[in-house]
Order: sequence, then structure tokens, then C-alpha cells
Amino acid sequence: MLAAVMRDSGIVLDTVSDPEPGSGEVLVKTLACGICGSDLHALRHADKMLEAAAESGAGQGPGPSVVVMDPSRDVVLGHEFCAEIVDFGPNTTKRLKAGTRVVSVPLAFRGTSIHAVGYSNELPGGYGEAMVLSEPLLLEVPNGLSTERAALTEPMAVGAHAVAKSGMGQGDAALVVGCGPVGLAVIAALRMLGVEAVVAADYSPMRRRLAEGLGAHRVVDPAERPAIDALRELAPFKPAVMFECVGVPGVIQQMMKDAPRGARIVVAGVCMEVDSFKPMIGINKELSLQFVLGYMPDEFANTLRAIAEGEIDVDPLITGRVGLEGVAGAFEDLARPDEHAKILVQPHS
Amino acid sequence: MLAAVMRDSGIVLDTVSDPEPGSGEVLVKTLACGICGSDLHALRHADKMLEAAAESGAGQGPGPSVVVMDPSRDVVLGHEFCAEIVDFGPNTTKRLKAGTRVVSVPLAFRGTSIHAVGYSNELPGGYGEAMVLSEPLLLEVPNGLSTERAALTEPMAVGAHAVAKSGMGQGDAALVVGCGPVGLAVIAALRMLGVEAVVAADYSPMRRRLAEGLGAHRVVDPAERPAIDALRELAPFKPAVMFECVGVPGVIQQMMKDAPRGARIVVAGVCMEVDSFKPMIGINKELSLQFVLGYMPDEFANTLRAIAEGEIDVDPLITGRVGLEGVAGAFEDLARPDEHAKILVQPHS
Repeated sequence: MLAAVMRDSGIVLDTVSDPEPGSGEVLVKTLACGICGSDLHALRHADKMLEAAAESGAGQGPGPSVVVMDPSRDVVLGHEFCAEIVDFGPNTTKRLKAGTRVVSVPLAFRGTSIHAVGYSNELPGGYGEAMVLSEPLLLEVPNGLSTERAALTEPMAVGAHAVAKSGMGQGDAALVVGCGPVGLAVIAALRMLGVEAVVAADYSPMRRRLAEGLGAHRVVDPAERPAIDALRELAPFKPAVMFECVGVPGVIQQMMKDAPRGARIVVAGVCMEVDSFKPMIGINKELSLQFVLGYMPDEFANTLRAIAEGEIDVDPLITGRVGLEGVAGAFEDLARPDEHAKILVQPHS
Repeated sequence: MLAAVMRDSGIVLDTVSDPEPGSGEVLVKTLACGICGSDLHALRHADKMLEAAAESGAGQGPGPSVVVMDPSRDVVLGHEFCAEIVDFGPNTTKRLKAGTRVVSVPLAFRGTSIHAVGYSNELPGGYGEAMVLSEPLLLEVPNGLSTERAALTEPMAVGAHAVAKSGMGQGDAALVVGCGPVGLAVIAALRMLGVEAVVAADYSPMRRRLAEGLGAHRVVDPAERPAIDALRELAPFKPAVMFECVGVPGVIQQMMKDAPRGARIVVAGVCMEVDSFKPMIGINKELSLQFVLGYMPDEFANTLRAIAEGEIDVDPLITGRVGLEGVAGAFEDLARPDEHAKILVQPHS
């Protein structure tokens, strides 16, 4: 099949072997797949990503562990997909028929191993014409929900999880620092929870507009005023929960300095670098930092439902569409965050 | 009165003006006062302490704020005290009589300001013959409780607060990294809560013995094996809460690397330096960091009760006693943590 392949720290269009569904797996035709910031990280900083995975104990300890990719070999990235069932491997129930459109948590179980679809040498992700997925994980795209919107399930589920892990309630106030796809997903989840004071900060006017569209009550250009001031103005007495959705060194320390006493900082931005901070500021204010990653299967399923029922309007997030030949260029474009939120890859367009 | 005075980054024995009780204040004779690690920090790194206070917003924002000391002027340190009521200022209720032994949260309210007793240019701490304290904050030392044990209320309350803020329950497992006074106080609080799996780590054999005495189920020399291994051995499946009670750069990052997935790290050790860490490790394992400081008044009062009722045996922690002339030397001795836990200053001995 044709795929946009990560090879030698670049993206090249090439033919790779067709994926074959194993036991319990289905073969799907990839209809749309969003490009994630983590894919940009993987392309540029695969070494750091793998180093952090090793330092986090990947492959050690009891229980199954996600198989770590080898970036010196071909990888087909892409884990935010909507696809159509084409064929079935052995030991499948066929509870969903061929032709059904599906989304899935991007994991696949093979024997005693777990593979991350889109970060695997074995299982291609969504930047190719076809994938194999684990049948038990498939969720049918509800009738009437467009393929493009369904493909936004994965990134929006990240926001639902971050908000759930924050432990915050409707009566708290939220500051979202950074309005890329992660920050926008957090804003949508905050509004779904019913939070009545959401302030969002980003240097990009386009991203601030998207934040407003998803329901932020105030948006701030940090070049003009500290975002925390807008939060204190909007909700002077509500407990503050701050979401770090940037992932660049120095942001956590700045948020610790800005935080009111007792605040919780949820770290959703993926920072691959070594970062520095002053513990004493955290101590003096008794702050807490909650690091978050991914989502639970129920959060993923509920996000699909919310998009299908129109509770989240994801259309404005889609700022570009490319075929497989356009993936390399789209990666370049996404390095200029002023112009894009989510670019969808359509392998068969 | 005679006092051990912090002056020009040293401790000198000198005569200072007698403190005079203002409105709502009582004059007390200082009977015993423990030397705290924060006092060593204040002596050596007053600049960093004040810088972190400023960066934490001290003196800014709405509401009263603790008056920050000026280290270029005299300060009488000491905030872990037991004292005896001598006289009363105006507007006092005299609910406790002269001659009563008392302890107190080391704060005093004057007008619209809050002063930290022992970190103030205005209100001397316990390394002098006398202090003035806020009458409403005084707690009577129960009959039969020795002055020395009562003076340990403050440092032990720090542990009670750290454990309360951890949110952990009896069924969780705790790892205490560092068995100085903070770590030992945490161990005592964990046992009071009923935690059945407490592992403590310290390089010092004396401190490991103290940790065992306070009820740690296992003690580990980190030079011999990783402390986390002992915790996983003792309690393979219990959720882990890790207490950072060292306060030296690099410890938080090491604990993040060691932590099992989903662990909470409670940062009770006071690190004045800039520290570094890899956010990606926290993200991959969805860790949380809870920074803690001090205690609430009820935690302080309950700690006094627990010591008085024999629930915590603090005697082994007292490894030295000095008069005012011995304070400077005691500060030197405490720089060698192998030999000491808590040194008590007895101004009238």
C-alpha cells in the first residue's frame, strides 16, 4: 500500500507492505487521520521520546507493556483516525460488518504485547491507505456523523481526560495556557463539565478565536497582560485549576509563579526537554502538579458520543486537508502554529 | 534579654531589647526551642529564601500577608518552642494564668499584619530568653507532658500536615525518602493514620534507627538498594505515595524516575535551589506532585494531644541540648546530619 513513511527523520511517500489482520484483528481502509503534535515530536526528537519512555520504565516491571518503536526502521505515524472495515482476521466476531465506519483507541493487542498504532514498526498508523485494528476496541461511528468529525474523537478525548484527572468541579475556575489542539480539547471538556469561568491564553489570534468558538469565556494575549489577571478578574474567589497545554520548557515554572495559593496545575502539554523550576515556590503556595496522558476507553467513547450529538463543534478546528503526498508539507506547516489547528490526512483523496 | 542573634550571616550571643507584649499578646519565658533545618537555610541562604517568597507573591494580592524579615537587621530565630506565661499585654483575657506552660503556632497578629515568630525583625523567636505570643493561639501543655516533648509539637505537626495533604488512606503504601526531622515526623503521622506499609530511606544509620523507632516497617540504605524496590517487595499492589523529605536538587527527578505509574509524590523537603526535571517522565506515568508547607491549627493541636497521650514517642529524636551560648555550635553540628536529629535550645539552662 501507499503510505507517508517516517524514515531517517523525514517523511517520504513510499509503498510499504500491506498490513494483514492477525487473530482478533480487522483490516480497515483509512478515511481520515489528524496530525498530532506528538507526531512532530516523534519526527524531530524520537531519541528524546524513547529516552523518556525508558526512564519511565517502559518494558520493565510486571504486566504487559507497550512495544517501543525503533525509529531507525520505517514507521507509519498517525493515531487520530476514522476508518472503514474491509476484512476480518481469524477469531473475529464480525459484530460490525464490512463497510462500517469506525474509530478506535489506537492500541492493538498481539499475543502478550500491546502495540501503539501509529508508533509501531509492525502496525502502520493512519498516514497510509490501510491499518489493522483490534476488533474489541472498535467503536461504530454513529449515523450522520461525518468522517472528519469522527476523526477528531482522539484529540478531543485528551481534553476530557485532562479535565477528569484535574478533579475540578463546575464551581472552580480554569485557566488554559496554550490553545493548540490540546488546549482547545481541554476548553471543550471544561464547558461540557459545566465550568462557568474558563480563561484561555495564546499568542496566536487564530487560536484565540478557536478558543472562543469552543466556549472560553475570556481569551487573553499573554503579550498584552498576564492571563492569571484575567482569571482573577473573572472569578476572584473560585479555586483555580490551571492547564499547561504548551509543552515548552519554562512554562511550568511561570505558571507556578502565577498560580494563586493552593492551585492545581494540570500538565497536559508534552515537553520533551529537561525543564527547570523552583520547588520553593510550589512549597510556599502548596501547589500541586498533576501530569496527564491520553484517556481511558470510556472517556474516548463518551467524546465520540458528545461530538455526534453536537455537544462539541469540532469543525472549526479542521484548518487543512492533505492527501498522502501532502503529509511532509503539512508537518512543515504545523511548525507555524499561527496558521493551523488540525490538519487531516485523507489517504484516498 | 540575652539571645542568640542572627547577624551578618552568623549567630552571635548578645543582649537585645526585651520584647514587650502588645494588645492581645502575652510575654513568655522560653523554656525550650528546637533548631529547624529552615533556620540553617535562613542563616546560609536568606537571599534565596526571600527571593522565593517574593516570587511566591508574598506581600502581594488581597488579604493579610506575613511580614517578610530583613536579614540585614538582627533576627532572633526559633519557632519550635515551649514557653511559660510571665505577663500579659492589654486586651488579653488571661484565660491561661501566669506560670502556665504553653506551645503555639509560631504566628503573631499585630494590627493588620501577620508576623512569623522566629523569622521577624520585630518579634524574637525561641533562641532568646523571652518572646511575645498571640494569646488566642496559645495551647496549654497538658499536665505531665514534659517541656522537651511539648517543644517537638511544631516539627511533628509538619508530618501530620504532609500526610493529610497526601490524601492517602490506610490501605496505601508509603515511601519516605530522607529521615531527618521532616521525614521522621511523616513516618510518625503515617503510623498514626494506620498505614501498614511504610518504607523509609536514609544514608545515615542513626536516622534509619530513628525511623524504625517511629514505626517504619522497613528501612533502606539507598547506597545498597533502591528504596522503591523495598516498597514494591513489601506492598506489590498497593497504591504508592512517596514523600520527598530531603530538599536537595535532583531528588524530585529521581523519585519521578523511581515512581510507579499513577504515584503521588508529596514534596515536604525544602529545596531553595533551582531544580530540574523531565516533565515527560511525569506525563508518561501520570504522576502528581503535591507541595506542602507547615500545618493547620487543628493539626498542630492534635499533634500536641498525640504526643501527650504517648501515641508518638518523640524522646529519641532529641539528640542534643544547648544553652544560648551553644546555638552557633549547634548550627555547625547540624550540618553533619549523621549525628543529630533535633537539638533543643534551653535559654535558661
